[in-house]
Parts: sequence; structure tokens; C-alpha cells
Amino acid sequence: MAAKKSTKVLEDLFLETLKDIYYAEKKLTKALPKMSKAAQSAELKKAFAKHAEETEGQVMRLEKVFAFLEKKPAGKTCPAINGLVEEGQEIIKDFKGSSAHDAGLLAAAQAVEHYEISRYGTLIAWAEELGWADVSAQLSATLSEEKQTDKDLTSLAESDVNERAEAQAA
Amino acid sequence: MAAKKSTKVLEDLFLETLKDIYYAEKKLTKALPKMSKAAQSAELKKAFAKHAEETEGQVMRLEKVFAFLEKKPAGKTCPAINGLVEEGQEIIKDFKGSSAHDAGLLAAAQAVEHYEISRYGTLIAWAEELGWADVSAQLSATLSEEKQTDKDLTSLAESDVNERAEAQAA
Repeated sequence: MAAKKSTKVLEDLFLETLKDIYYAEKKLTKALPKMSKAAQSAELKKAFAKHAEETEGQVMRLEKVFAFLEKKPAGKTCPAINGLVEEGQEIIKDFKGSSAHDAGLLAAAQAVEHYEISRYGTLIAWAEELGWADVSAQLSATLSEEKQTDKDLTSLAESDVNERAEAQAA
Repeated sequence: MAAKKSTKVLEDLFLETLKDIYYAEKKLTKALPKMSKAAQSAELKKAFAKHAEETEGQVMRLEKVFAFLEKKPAGKTCPAINGLVEEGQEIIKDFKGSSAHDAGLLAAAQAVEHYEISRYGTLIAWAEELGWADVSAQLSATLSEEKQTDKDLTSLAESDVNERAEAQAA
């Protein structure tokens, strides 16, 4: 292994992943208002609008993390979030006006949340190993919000959106 | 809303999402052996190889679901999984031979697991609303495996891969 060992270490990996999620959050600040506009139910519109606002705060937290590390905030194209957002756009296009539209859009949003939960979980684990308590605290605040959003979307799906799709389909 | 209402309903949405995860699982049957080959630690190699094998079984379960619905198994390009797999490939390329390589690869695999957990959770909820108990049972068996894989990867990350990256970086 020694012969192949490069100078890239956990800090580099942390920074690359930080740039990835920074790109993702910035992308979502644009995607979520569109999803809110596209949603048919008032509840889902509201949920997306609330999360769009939260996402602005999450971008600011990431900028604080860059500052802690004495790095300039920079995004790095994240193919995963591009794909996830594209799936939401496909739903909007394919199911527009359909009773299943909101159920699909909500599911697409949950896939985004799961991606973020995974990313933040990883970054927090690495920050803790690196002894970066301030960084970990910022990221943990966002992780709590993402988990809450996922729960809220699940409740909404169970209570309303899917049932409406099913009722209209019957 | 009535004017815009299309004929697309929850069954259509279910089928589209089923095609999406079928494409994703088939893609993973090819990606996971490559990730296993690329992994530096024996434990991570083994974890990916085990999950590659499990994924073959998950593809077969999805084929059973298509059969229950009297549909021919068909995939539909899933931009999300393409993006997620691409992220893993970037790690392999950028961190090859580095002490942080496996930590990054493991994190990429967990992002994939989270995507699948989200998708299967959604499909199960819809199957239950549609009264498709046999379908729900097949999907639930896979969801349990995905959750277990995610847990196994977390244990591996905590016990080994990240600590090694950190130790070598010190």
C-alpha cells in the first residue's frame, strides 16, 4: 500500500464532500421554490416553501464551516443531486394535473432528504474524528432539520397526499 | 384541477418508480463488484461483495413484483443512481492509493443505500395503499436488507476505515 499512498487524506476528503453538499444545498435553494410552485396541495406547497427557507440557513451554516477551515466557500458539481432533482422534474412533467402528482413529487423530495441525511451523517463522523467540534455542531444543526423535514414529509404522505391519489384513482 | 386531471394515477406512479429502482438495482449489480475490487481494506471488499450478491436477489424480487402486476420487467433510466454511482467512481479516481480512499468509497455506498431505503419505503407505502400485500412483502424483504447493509457500513466506518484514514493522516 505504501507505494501507492498519496498525500490525499481525510481532510481533503472532508473538503471535497463539503463542496459537494454546498453545491447540493445551493441547487436546492433554486429547486425547492419550483417544487413548491408545482405542488397541487396547499400542505405540500407550504412544506416545500418552509424547507426552501431552511435551506438558505443551511447554506449559511456551510459557509461558516468553510470559514472555520479558512477556506473560501466553493461548490463542486454533485452528480447525485443533479440526478435527484431531475427525477423531481420528471415527475412534474409526467404527472402534471394527475391525482398522483403530489405523491410522486413528495417521494422525490424524500429521496433528496435521504441523500442529505447520508452526507451530513458522514461529514459529522469525519469532523468528530478530526476533532473539529465547531464544525460538527454546525453540521449537526442541519442534520436535525433534514431529519425533521423527512419526518414531516412522511406524515404528509401518510395523512394526505397518497390517500388522495388513491381515492381519485379508485 | 379537474380540467388538468390526467389519467395517470397511483398505479402508474408505482410502476414508473418500480422501473426506476429496477434500473438502479441492475446498475448496482455491475457497480458493486467494481467497488469491491477497488476497496483497499479486506473488510470493505467483503462487505461490497456480500451486498453485490444480495443485490442479485433483490433484482429477482423486483422481477416477481413485475410478475404480480402482470408486467414485463423493464428498467427506466434513473438519473439519481447514475449520479450516485458516478460519485463513487470519482472517489476511486481522486483518492486511489490514499489513506482516505476507503472512507470516501464507503460514504458513497451509504449514499446509495439511503437512496434505495427512501425508494423502497415509498414503494411499500404505495403498495399498501393499493392493497397489494404480496408486492409489499417482496419489497419489505429487500428494504430490511438495505437497512442492514447501511448499518453494517456504519459499523465498518466507525470501527475501521475512518480511523485508519485519520491515523495515516496524522
